[in-house]
Amino acid sequence: MHSWVDGVSADVLAVSNRGLAYGDGLFETLLVRGGRPRLFERHLARLLDGCQRLHLPLDSALLTEEAQRFATAMGDGVLKVIVTRGDAPRGYAIDPLAAPRRILQAAPLPAYPSAHAEEGVALFQCAMRLAEQPALAGLKHLNRLEQVLARSEWSDPRWAEGLMCDTSGRVIEGVYSNLFMVCDGRLCTPALARCGVAGVMRAELLAQAQALGMETLVADFSLDDLACADEVFVCNSVYGVWPVLTCGAARWQAGAVTRKLQRIARELLDA
Amino acid sequence: MHSWVDGVSADVLAVSNRGLAYGDGLFETLLVRGGRPRLFERHLARLLDGCQRLHLPLDSALLTEEAQRFATAMGDGVLKVIVTRGDAPRGYAIDPLAAPRRILQAAPLPAYPSAHAEEGVALFQCAMRLAEQPALAGLKHLNRLEQVLARSEWSDPRWAEGLMCDTSGRVIEGVYSNLFMVCDGRLCTPALARCGVAGVMRAELLAQAQALGMETLVADFSLDDLACADEVFVCNSVYGVWPVLTCGAARWQAGAVTRKLQRIARELLDA
Repeated sequence: MHSWVDGVSADVLAVSNRGLAYGDGLFETLLVRGGRPRLFERHLARLLDGCQRLHLPLDSALLTEEAQRFATAMGDGVLKVIVTRGDAPRGYAIDPLAAPRRILQAAPLPAYPSAHAEEGVALFQCAMRLAEQPALAGLKHLNRLEQVLARSEWSDPRWAEGLMCDTSGRVIEGVYSNLFMVCDGRLCTPALARCGVAGVMRAELLAQAQALGMETLVADFSLDDLACADEVFVCNSVYGVWPVLTCGAARWQAGAVTRKLQRIARELLDA
Repeated sequence: MHSWVDGVSADVLAVSNRGLAYGDGLFETLLVRGGRPRLFERHLARLLDGCQRLHLPLDSALLTEEAQRFATAMGDGVLKVIVTRGDAPRGYAIDPLAAPRRILQAAPLPAYPSAHAEEGVALFQCAMRLAEQPALAGLKHLNRLEQVLARSEWSDPRWAEGLMCDTSGRVIEGVYSNLFMVCDGRLCTPALARCGVAGVMRAELLAQAQALGMETLVADFSLDDLACADEVFVCNSVYGVWPVLTCGAARWQAGAVTRKLQRIARELLDA
């Protein structure tokens, strides 16, 4: 795995980095095709929003320039961007002089079975719940133990993703995806004001659906709501859209809305 | 800041380390005096409990040997032990072959004003709340953005610590300390089943108080309960015990129980 730290080829980081000490930072995972990072503007916007909420003074022009240069060298693959608050002595207090570190990592394109997109996937129902923390909700920050524990609940590849609820039992998202439902022709996705990651593909699909005149609803949903949906799919900015066929006892079929949004996602990622 | 990685002097770590990627690991902060890490058995026990809950296969004998050797070389200071799930490719799934990394860092003894212990401290009332996550409660894990954001709320040194409540409004702990109250002669401390760090000094003081025949109560407490307490103090395994004199509008005096436990803490740390 090739990587840069602050624009220079490097595969190590100071042990005093606050990304390690406290998970004090953010990340983005971008698909790179033909040397171009896809949905870059949306990824950058979310990252900058996170930086603002965490009081992390990122040089966005510098990061953009580095990411474009890194992606050109990559060609095809997955680009992970990590931004941390930099190196600092012990203690939670933020040193205003600490320079944020920009880490870029290249990984190969993931080898998902083509049936995931073509036919659909089964979701594992995770016992692990997402804690409700409005101050961090929506951010793709480096505090990801909930996802690590949730992902450790299953190893059988018949489950392509896991469904996560919050501690109050609301349906929220997949472990590494966002969740959509189609209910009476309306495109629905869980609100992420208390927990969850506000995914770039989620935002893009909501915007595209609205542009197509589709009704969209961002709200709280229960497992019963999910079971009653006409169509269900998961999405992220690497694989696009996967129809969901089962979760627990519930069964769905890949429907027309899912297929339409899947084509849109594919065009955005492959174009 | 001197450091070892896996028993060898090193100040860098692979950028692919899961401690950085996901905060996938745990830490301990130990006082070292005369080359001896204090309360080592309790620190190690908590670390191993955390490793079990995070499915992290730590070689405890090896870590113990390294920590003792590192502390001997340190003399006096603060030893931070970080254990991460090791280096791994992209993705939340745990690689059962990934070897956990052991990181030891030496820092100088903190220069707290002597008035903190002798007279007492004022607590800042943090707006940031602790999310309720039973799966991680009690652990000193590397997902510490809540503490980073809470600590960023004040910079005036007249506040030595910050008080944190959970999202339901229960009083939980300090940003880097545990909290005790004395109510009608009974030693009380918040239950940490939903959030918070189950501190080593907290466990030690509870055990010592019980051995002295003192009644102890570990339960849920509100800000009103806190305001009504006869004595309040914070503790951790580096500074011992600080009496709390104020928090918001509430006022307390350093009382006899606080002073007795402060002496006990000092003996444990200085002996």
